[in-house]
Amino acid sequence: ADVKKIAVIAGDGIGPEVVGEALKVLKKTEELFGYQFETEHGLFGGIAIDEKGTPLPQETLDICKNADAVLLGAVGGPKWDNNSKELRPETGLLGIRKALGLFSNIRPANVFDCLKEASTLKPEVLEGTDLIVVRELTGGIYFGEKFRREGANGEEAVDTCVYNVTEVERIVRQAFEIAQTRRKKLASVDKANVLETSRLWREVVNRIAPEYADVELEHVLVDNCAMQLLRRPSSFDVIVTENMFGDILSDEAAMLTGSIGMLSSASLGEGSFGLYEPVHGSAPDIAGQGISNPIATILSVALMFRLTFGYHEAAKVIEDAVENVLNAGHRTGDIAVDKSKAIGTVEMGDLIIAAM
Amino acid sequence: ADVKKIAVIAGDGIGPEVVGEALKVLKKTEELFGYQFETEHGLFGGIAIDEKGTPLPQETLDICKNADAVLLGAVGGPKWDNNSKELRPETGLLGIRKALGLFSNIRPANVFDCLKEASTLKPEVLEGTDLIVVRELTGGIYFGEKFRREGANGEEAVDTCVYNVTEVERIVRQAFEIAQTRRKKLASVDKANVLETSRLWREVVNRIAPEYADVELEHVLVDNCAMQLLRRPSSFDVIVTENMFGDILSDEAAMLTGSIGMLSSASLGEGSFGLYEPVHGSAPDIAGQGISNPIATILSVALMFRLTFGYHEAAKVIEDAVENVLNAGHRTGDIAVDKSKAIGTVEMGDLIIAAM
Ligand SMILES: CC(C)[C@H](C(=O)O)[C@@H](O)C(=O)O
Ligand SMILES: CC(C)[C@H](C(=O)O)[C@@H](O)C(=O)O
Repeated sequence: ADVKKIAVIAGDGIGPEVVGEALKVLKKTEELFGYQFETEHGLFGGIAIDEKGTPLPQETLDICKNADAVLLGAVGGPKWDNNSKELRPETGLLGIRKALGLFSNIRPANVFDCLKEASTLKPEVLEGTDLIVVRELTGGIYFGEKFRREGANGEEAVDTCVYNVTEVERIVRQAFEIAQTRRKKLASVDKANVLETSRLWREVVNRIAPEYADVELEHVLVDNCAMQLLRRPSSFDVIVTENMFGDILSDEAAMLTGSIGMLSSASLGEGSFGLYEPVHGSAPDIAGQGISNPIATILSVALMFRLTFGYHEAAKVIEDAVENVLNAGHRTGDIAVDKSKAIGTVEMGDLIIAAM
Repeated sequence: ADVKKIAVIAGDGIGPEVVGEALKVLKKTEELFGYQFETEHGLFGGIAIDEKGTPLPQETLDICKNADAVLLGAVGGPKWDNNSKELRPETGLLGIRKALGLFSNIRPANVFDCLKEASTLKPEVLEGTDLIVVRELTGGIYFGEKFRREGANGEEAVDTCVYNVTEVERIVRQAFEIAQTRRKKLASVDKANVLETSRLWREVVNRIAPEYADVELEHVLVDNCAMQLLRRPSSFDVIVTENMFGDILSDEAAMLTGSIGMLSSASLGEGSFGLYEPVHGSAPDIAGQGISNPIATILSVALMFRLTFGYHEAAKVIEDAVENVLNAGHRTGDIAVDKSKAIGTVEMGDLIIAAM
């Protein structure tokens, strides 16, 4: 049989709890669809710093490289925030992206009907919002040279933002292709009126755009995009942008849906390999209490099924199960209006499995 | 008598119309308070490109340098968007900031009670929102070295982000001082988990914070700030950040108030000199129709009175007049609920003057 290998990185904070429920869902799809998954667990982030002295141990990287896909919980927490750079969870995150060649971060921001009220935006503005931010993930100012030096006015720090034509082209093509499967609109976000990397970015976009003539393209300056996301969120379909802008805009977009506890993400490279994780963080304040919301991680499994394995039917079964459980009124604390009726992490996982 | 010199740069699009009304307000304060203003007009932006072949002619710069303050309308428009870099209005904007040493951009984002409904945010979320973004304006990736080069993977573009200790210290001190005159809360925004310039930024903030012990300081990562502005806008008082982050966050903050046609801004250097302008752009689509909203520019005069001239009483008279006219129900098209009752630019200006 076709055994799929999944590297499982539970990570820190609520990571292990939410990943636990996602693994139960995975198991359930084995029963229902006859799939076979082989999971291998790796240490990563804060827990890896504590146990192995590095946020990204070589064993973990090897497990990921050996796998068809990676399921990640969440990493980080105040415990490691003041560590030196090499001993910080984020350094592991940047390291794993680079080492696995995950140049593309796919961040859907859609509104769950039953959660519309959770947004701080007016429901009529949010109506119909369903967008994807495609963020370049292994280039730009994140990975350029960084250093300190003595300048004329005292110590100075330098970060370098670099993009080459190849890097821009592959992410932009991917975004065009995603737009082709959706509402066929692409917003390319840059700061071409100031940055040289943005001018290169825009040149590449304009050069390849004719190959995707069925997609309506607009160029949006990053400051304007931050505004338009608030003013007309539903008018966006796919947004493609560089690493730093994508970090900011994808979080803004996620927050405006009001559904941040529900959003999943994929980080992709060449081929079908991908790393899947919830958008929310490790939430150290509620870790270990069994009250976290496992839905974003469960939906990350569905995203993995779609984008890496092509298991569309099973993905739909998971997504529908989540929707049915929500429609039946079940809520974890983060999304409950009446907190006294909130259910726990395991209970939510069990309900979803029962609904599959 | 104490004659104040004001350089007036009407600029492009609706710039001349809105500046026209602001100058009427200025004149009115001469009558009411016995002030004396000497205005000198300069070409800048698109119109300067057309008439002088450069967005920032030396004469204009000299007029500004000779003045106590600058009043700017708006610059730019599609006509010049595809020009080469030296012939673009934005290049003039960056040039004037650098040439006049305007290292600090003060962007208040407050909600006008009568316009609360114009925001896409829920009124109860917006309630009490009154924040100021203090943006560093002459450093960072905007002004670092930029170039193209041939790399291993084809052509590449490079931008450099540089900050020295002195640059960070002066803007952060200014932000602390502004916070001391307000609700005494400062959020310093950076990306210290990734950028070296942000780590330097945070070090400087932490080093000088004890001198402002009455101000409550929080460090917020830029992606998180983009989210928190949506989730808890009213909890922010003063936000201080570097140039690129400030560009994005100040526009997000302005938009969420729903009052973008009403917001003014100041760009300051050492001493009392400042450049004042509305936050909105040149709106080429409605230029010349006499329907633009002059309030942001009129309030920019009030801001100039406060920050450069110390004319607090007159500033209050202008601000109160604006509020009274709005409370009486008068609206330009951009802020009118019933567009058929909208009044024009000149009519709005006249009403405000009459109310002073
Ligand atoms: C933790 C940090 C380095 C990371 C990033 O900026 O990429 C995070 O914000 C994210 O978006 O995954
Ligand atoms: C026009 C552009 C160069 C400018 C900037 O990015 O600073 C504008 O967006 C602003 O905020 O004043």
